[in-house]
Amino acid sequence: MSVLANPQRSDMVSPSATRRPLPEAVRAALQQHFGERFTQNASILAQHGADESHYAPTPPDAVVFALSSEDVAFAVKTCAAQGVPVIAFGVGSSIEGHVLAVHGGVCIDLSRMDQVLAVRPEDMTATVQAGVTRMALNAELAHSGFFFSVDPGANASIGGMVATAASGTNTVRYGTMRDNVLSLTVVTAEGAIIRTASHARKSSAGYNLTQLYCGSEGTLGIVTEATVRLHPRPEEVLAAVANFPDIKSAVDAVIQAVQLGLPLARAEMLDALTIRAINRHSKTSLAEAPTLFLEFGGAAGEAAAQAEQMQQIVRDCGGGDFKMATREEERSALWTPRHHAYFAVLQLRPGSRSLTTDACVPVSRLAECIEETRADLEASGLVAPIFGHVGDGNFHCLILVDPANEAEREVAEALSQRLTRRAMAHGGTCTGEHGVGLHKIGYLAEEHGEAAVDIMRRVKQALDPKNILNPGKVVLLPFAPGG
Amino acid sequence: MSVLANPQRSDMVSPSATRRPLPEAVRAALQQHFGERFTQNASILAQHGADESHYAPTPPDAVVFALSSEDVAFAVKTCAAQGVPVIAFGVGSSIEGHVLAVHGGVCIDLSRMDQVLAVRPEDMTATVQAGVTRMALNAELAHSGFFFSVDPGANASIGGMVATAASGTNTVRYGTMRDNVLSLTVVTAEGAIIRTASHARKSSAGYNLTQLYCGSEGTLGIVTEATVRLHPRPEEVLAAVANFPDIKSAVDAVIQAVQLGLPLARAEMLDALTIRAINRHSKTSLAEAPTLFLEFGGAAGEAAAQAEQMQQIVRDCGGGDFKMATREEERSALWTPRHHAYFAVLQLRPGSRSLTTDACVPVSRLAECIEETRADLEASGLVAPIFGHVGDGNFHCLILVDPANEAEREVAEALSQRLTRRAMAHGGTCTGEHGVGLHKIGYLAEEHGEAAVDIMRRVKQALDPKNILNPGKVVLLPFAPGG
Repeated sequence: MSVLANPQRSDMVSPSATRRPLPEAVRAALQQHFGERFTQNASILAQHGADESHYAPTPPDAVVFALSSEDVAFAVKTCAAQGVPVIAFGVGSSIEGHVLAVHGGVCIDLSRMDQVLAVRPEDMTATVQAGVTRMALNAELAHSGFFFSVDPGANASIGGMVATAASGTNTVRYGTMRDNVLSLTVVTAEGAIIRTASHARKSSAGYNLTQLYCGSEGTLGIVTEATVRLHPRPEEVLAAVANFPDIKSAVDAVIQAVQLGLPLARAEMLDALTIRAINRHSKTSLAEAPTLFLEFGGAAGEAAAQAEQMQQIVRDCGGGDFKMATREEERSALWTPRHHAYFAVLQLRPGSRSLTTDACVPVSRLAECIEETRADLEASGLVAPIFGHVGDGNFHCLILVDPANEAEREVAEALSQRLTRRAMAHGGTCTGEHGVGLHKIGYLAEEHGEAAVDIMRRVKQALDPKNILNPGKVVLLPFAPGG
Repeated sequence: MSVLANPQRSDMVSPSATRRPLPEAVRAALQQHFGERFTQNASILAQHGADESHYAPTPPDAVVFALSSEDVAFAVKTCAAQGVPVIAFGVGSSIEGHVLAVHGGVCIDLSRMDQVLAVRPEDMTATVQAGVTRMALNAELAHSGFFFSVDPGANASIGGMVATAASGTNTVRYGTMRDNVLSLTVVTAEGAIIRTASHARKSSAGYNLTQLYCGSEGTLGIVTEATVRLHPRPEEVLAAVANFPDIKSAVDAVIQAVQLGLPLARAEMLDALTIRAINRHSKTSLAEAPTLFLEFGGAAGEAAAQAEQMQQIVRDCGGGDFKMATREEERSALWTPRHHAYFAVLQLRPGSRSLTTDACVPVSRLAECIEETRADLEASGLVAPIFGHVGDGNFHCLILVDPANEAEREVAEALSQRLTRRAMAHGGTCTGEHGVGLHKIGYLAEEHGEAAVDIMRRVKQALDPKNILNPGKVVLLPFAPGG
């Protein structure tokens, strides 16, 4: 536990004792198959050994750019024969160290698998290659009347979003990636290409492989294609912003709305410090108080009716009058500060990096958990704004640290640990949407119990007996180079 | 395949060559622990060896009535030590032979685990023991402002509904059991008690054990408790019935409504033959044509607005004027015939039993698949009404057979096989909501491919290496008495 909970330790993220050079047979076979799409160029390796986390880069030994499931299967088979690790890579926007090559190996870059293979308006589904980003998919859908809902902030690849079971700001209405994936094409540890489910909207036909791979972070198989659900684009969209005297009132307003069945499209809570960061960064003059950013959508007239109902709830909870926007440019202007919150926050302390936390608790415990966290953060003396997807009980702190200051990094990591344990003590989870990666491995047994993690470990062993699929992530199995 | 696809064959459902008497050590230990809650009474054994399927009963060797997860764990440990099969039993309403003791063993009856352990209005969740039925849970919620949505028709137990990934008439709006289960308590093959997830609304903390057990039909573990989502009870509910010139128009109307984001609470299509059965059984005088039974719900005024919008869509698709009902008694009167459809249909041919099919296809293929099926059924000369959950692409035929007429049973089974293969050819699944049980095992490889079924088999082997958990269901592993 101690090593795992202290991921800054260099032995977790630097080339480890289990690394060995890429076997020549693997190098030659990959080079022959992929040609110019095989590389060992140092800067490309470095780019593929890092994500948006606070970890130092840990590059793979080679990168191949796949164009098809067959390419991926070839790479996996070739590596499996020699027990060489394979790590899938989309756009590198994960934030828990998911793509770091801690045991070396070959990175399979899926970003060129960027084809939208089918859009089926009648079924409200689309099938995409794993490298398609959520924005690219939505651009393709622009004139279809439908959209793909999952929005984790970053322009992540669909494959990556499947791998981490991503979610984001509009999960309160449209669900997480888990709720929006119907079927996957997956390359197994042996290089077989399987499809996890049909395109029917529901099925009881055997074990739920779709959900087994969703959230498995490339440790059970590599997702190469996904069939996702689409949602009708609402006729009318309305955005609103409201201030609150405290976090609890803001959270209560959202809880009441959800209990009434009010279909909030988005409900984001930002604390006063986040608003201050936004005001500085975006030259806005928002009141520096706990604030809800809301979005409503529906058929003509519905969004306005929802907003009216919500304004009443907000007032009942002690919140202020809505600042509202209907037209797209106005809505965008109102919400842009929220979308830029991450960058705004970083600029509260120039030169800092963020240790980004990701706890999720039952909504009834959210206000209390945030308040306790707020007090803990303030006592630490570090700058650490909080914002969250209130309807889901999910919130993030960006703990700003000077990357050169080891003592400060330790304080931040200790805060993050206490926060994670606090969330679990409130009946919550150590990660709502970022995933386990390297950073949360040590918490899995605390959250689920040893017997449940043992079940996960058995699944991993059964599906990847040589431990070549993104080894060292999610659940720890012994890794021996060469399998 | 041939044996599996011909489940009437007695070698599949009668005490098999692999059966042996219950080992005395197991009998004695169970009797000591369970006292009067252990039985080998023949009529109780017979009752626990049958479900609502067309299979002949195949009783277990003993039944224990569990009151707690610890009871279940004790029974599993005791049986595991001697390689004796254990089969979980709720109310026996499954319809694919799920609970038949094809290799003998001990049935663990969970029906006395009937406690609603917690209702959390703020979190919109409830935690129940596995034996709580959906109606009992909803009775408990009567004055809470919330309800549990999944409604497969039968008053199934929540544990059983988890086990089969059940759904039903209001899935179009509220989702399946998979969408409504947050966390499970499960007893593993070794008798460990695990919890699959926290009570947070979402999580990315490791492999999705909740969804792995959901739909696993007692073959990977025994669900003893479940935390489920609740939904706000709509303020206003409105029911409507409309006739259509043909099945395609009825299906098209629902597809259009879903595409527009119209939140239909229920949308059931019944064919003319089902309506005829209903008219005879319920003394109604509905037009004997393809018919949609609809339900709308929402805040005051919303249901009426939705109904108005739907009436327009129905007219555009060639359907007739709504027969509507708002007050609860009127709604109940309007919908009761739909709820009694199963019994009404059986009375089309007194003395018959139903071979009930369960295909689910992408909604764009539903009308075509039903029409092809209709033609096939008519050509067979058998009586076989069709109805379906149109918004999900899921439909059922009740093929009425004389249980004493083997030739007829074979015709029915052949029809069912062709229907299942037709659904898969249309991009669908061999079971939308009933599960695999004994009846659909042979189709899994056809639907998913051998490599995917191999993954399922490896999961089963990893989690139940002795193959004692409901052996002979879902995926086939060699069964050797004594493990």
